[in-house]
Amino acid sequence: MKTKLFFEKAQKGVPPLKHWFMSPVGVVEPVEDSHAWQGVSMRPVSPKRSYGNGEGICFDFGEHAVGHVELELSLDGVDFDSPLFLRVLAAELPYEFRYRREEWTSWISQSWMQEDFVKYDVLPAKIRLPRRYAFRYLLVEVIATPNPIMFQRVRLRAESAAGRRLPPPPEGLSPVENQIWEVGVRTLRNCMQTVFEDGPKRDRRLWLGDLRLEALVNAVTYRNPRVVERSLYVLACAMEKDGIFPSCAYEGEMLGRHGAHAYEYPFLLPKILVEHIGFYQRRQVARDLYDTALFQFTRVEKDISKEGLLLVPPPQWSVIDQNRTMDKTVGTHCAYLYGLEAMAQLSDVLGKKDAPWLRKRAAWMRKTARAHWLQEDGFFATDRELGKGERTLASQIWAILGQVVTGEEARTLLKRSLEDASLVAPMSPYLQHFLLEACRLVGNEEALHQVIRSYWGAMLETGTTTFYEVFKEDDPFYSPYKQTWVNSACHAWSCTPVYFLA
Amino acid sequence: MKTKLFFEKAQKGVPPLKHWFMSPVGVVEPVEDSHAWQGVSMRPVSPKRSYGNGEGICFDFGEHAVGHVELELSLDGVDFDSPLFLRVLAAELPYEFRYRREEWTSWISQSWMQEDFVKYDVLPAKIRLPRRYAFRYLLVEVIATPNPIMFQRVRLRAESAAGRRLPPPPEGLSPVENQIWEVGVRTLRNCMQTVFEDGPKRDRRLWLGDLRLEALVNAVTYRNPRVVERSLYVLACAMEKDGIFPSCAYEGEMLGRHGAHAYEYPFLLPKILVEHIGFYQRRQVARDLYDTALFQFTRVEKDISKEGLLLVPPPQWSVIDQNRTMDKTVGTHCAYLYGLEAMAQLSDVLGKKDAPWLRKRAAWMRKTARAHWLQEDGFFATDRELGKGERTLASQIWAILGQVVTGEEARTLLKRSLEDASLVAPMSPYLQHFLLEACRLVGNEEALHQVIRSYWGAMLETGTTTFYEVFKEDDPFYSPYKQTWVNSACHAWSCTPVYFLA
Repeated sequence: MKTKLFFEKAQKGVPPLKHWFMSPVGVVEPVEDSHAWQGVSMRPVSPKRSYGNGEGICFDFGEHAVGHVELELSLDGVDFDSPLFLRVLAAELPYEFRYRREEWTSWISQSWMQEDFVKYDVLPAKIRLPRRYAFRYLLVEVIATPNPIMFQRVRLRAESAAGRRLPPPPEGLSPVENQIWEVGVRTLRNCMQTVFEDGPKRDRRLWLGDLRLEALVNAVTYRNPRVVERSLYVLACAMEKDGIFPSCAYEGEMLGRHGAHAYEYPFLLPKILVEHIGFYQRRQVARDLYDTALFQFTRVEKDISKEGLLLVPPPQWSVIDQNRTMDKTVGTHCAYLYGLEAMAQLSDVLGKKDAPWLRKRAAWMRKTARAHWLQEDGFFATDRELGKGERTLASQIWAILGQVVTGEEARTLLKRSLEDASLVAPMSPYLQHFLLEACRLVGNEEALHQVIRSYWGAMLETGTTTFYEVFKEDDPFYSPYKQTWVNSACHAWSCTPVYFLA
Repeated sequence: MKTKLFFEKAQKGVPPLKHWFMSPVGVVEPVEDSHAWQGVSMRPVSPKRSYGNGEGICFDFGEHAVGHVELELSLDGVDFDSPLFLRVLAAELPYEFRYRREEWTSWISQSWMQEDFVKYDVLPAKIRLPRRYAFRYLLVEVIATPNPIMFQRVRLRAESAAGRRLPPPPEGLSPVENQIWEVGVRTLRNCMQTVFEDGPKRDRRLWLGDLRLEALVNAVTYRNPRVVERSLYVLACAMEKDGIFPSCAYEGEMLGRHGAHAYEYPFLLPKILVEHIGFYQRRQVARDLYDTALFQFTRVEKDISKEGLLLVPPPQWSVIDQNRTMDKTVGTHCAYLYGLEAMAQLSDVLGKKDAPWLRKRAAWMRKTARAHWLQEDGFFATDRELGKGERTLASQIWAILGQVVTGEEARTLLKRSLEDASLVAPMSPYLQHFLLEACRLVGNEEALHQVIRSYWGAMLETGTTTFYEVFKEDDPFYSPYKQTWVNSACHAWSCTPVYFLA
């Protein structure tokens, strides 16, 4: 069976991680600060000689990184007659230090908080904290110790398939763009592990949508094709008999198991494959997955109405944006169109014969989308019968990317969309990426740079060293999970300005 | 240097541990029960299919044991999209489930509580909990899980240098004595690890006083001389230049380090050595430690007053009993006498020439003790100038063991002491052991069996499967540490009835 081959390739193709050591750049403490993003900032403090019961120390590693913390501890005093009991909290952002276990309200698991309780029987000792952390700040609190402990050495054994070095930006960028580049490539580096993780703090999982975006930036920076290929095989080997290409899959001991399906993610598969050939001239993974990719377009034919509209049958759902209530009908249909064109290109590149019917179908479904959803005011939106009738920026972006509108008409639509504040705005960096893609497609580089500067530039101003999973400039506590603490502050789907700046 | 030899012997002489698996005999829950010892008993409950957030399960392993817990867990549901976060509390006694971290008041470290917080990234999984536990009951609470978890298998990989099997009691014991035997040998088994530990839950350390008692019971049950010898070398290699034989020492990575000194413990060393030769006809350890043992008697000569009384210079202190305020002057002096006689015997057995002067000194110091401390009412007690002037059972026991009184006088003193409720009573099983030794020395087997039945029999009635570190029949919550939770319910110094029943 084919998935067996994919499973073997996923098992054998683990990209080697590179490791390096990082030391704290200082000792800090979180303080209330009404001027700071999320109301908390870190204030430098002088380290004490040693830390006894109830005391804590917070190390600042200077930038976000991923790996295992090693502590060399000794005792300030003679007797070590009882175990050392520590609480550890590794945080990406200062606000996470407000975390209180008993105040947890999210439906998302509290186990994502990088809080651990550990005991050690012997000091002095070199301790390796039990779990991988993604963090900048490390709080170590002493719950119980026979005598105060001294931190002889604290370091992080950082890891990434990309290695430590952040590729330098191209010449000619502005200072802000240089910073965006640096934060973007660090974001990708920290998510690039044995697969493309979405966020190394929370979720820590491979998603097909995130993979596409990470692969783009990887191609113009770290240029590591193995991570792309392995990620694809990890997804492929989790496929079940229904042939749905997984949107999300696990690795390690859970290799071969998939998570939730996003309706439109599989349409991205041929795009990833054809771009991969373009970036690296490596064709094997595309050959292996060609039939699978093609099947993603035929298997949903039953969801195309007689009017030629692709309508997601509930309870299936599309991502489009991290917005649970938004009407995603136009976006999903157009993501299908976007995929059909990529599939046709892949057919051409691999010398297959599917391009003609794929393009024919795309042409037809562009017309149907236009006929049904292009409203009198020039924006795309569903009728209320089919959706909510909302005007969303997502629908305009995808109408452009699906080439329902092209040329000057597309340029105009994009321009009007960016100027019309009444459209439902993007909530996630994921959709912001497709906005950038639409800007580039219509050749509006000015708008592209403007979006980068305003959206990612505003993220920079929060003082971050990696880009976020979610970001709303006017709502620092916005969380799709109803718990700001659990938001991921290093999320690969927000690193794509690098691709457009390259 | 000599301690280097001892260090090597301690390193090389680690007795191999034997392992066996134990499964829970049932699922229980702690309930308030005014009829139960310490007010808590365990009620059998039916296990659920699976356990979700906020739920817990408590396994009863049927008896106290020591080792590592292994859990095979799976998910009751499909998605495992976030780590599993568990709280574990392993308890020797039901009362420990009342433990609340925020209510800790003892000066003893809270880290001794067998509470751990653990996270696992992948299910199904075979999990080994991180630390060795000494327990009968294991509570596993789910703090966070993506779906309810199922316990596919729960087992303890138990360990002891003694092995699983409890040696059977000799013929002819009463039913209660048979039970005392079983609980006693289990207590020793669970403390017999790579050294003689005092208690495997708390302290987990080698003490010279406990070692002597454990060696006695070991000799008539498991007959494992290696644990005795290794324990002696672990202590010996922690000796410093002052030549004080350590009362307590660490092993593992802390091998060669000692803890607090008890003033009278080193006087037990020749007793252990001469008994060891008697039990096993193995002389090497006694030869290695002869000079060291002898030095314990000469190095304290400066503490002998011109009247011939051994007086502990503060802040040094003796154990005698686990009672911080009791006058221990007579006990310490007589423990020295007890040691002098053992040292003289060791000299004889090894063909050395120290016996005459040792016996001469003992004879003199018996007279001085008698002259100064035998009061008109026939009890031994200090004058108020030297101590507190209290009449304690400890002083009478040690006057007998130090042979300050002998023959019929000793028999009478013991009888009167046991009948006089005004004497300060023993607080620990450690002193109870020396009471048994005194009974045997004066040939009062009836009193010996009466003490065993009343003291250890009362412990049995609390429902325990091992004997305690501390026990006061009229005060279930008595703790020398001001925190009942931390008391050790399996403490080797309480296993010695087995020696006398053998």
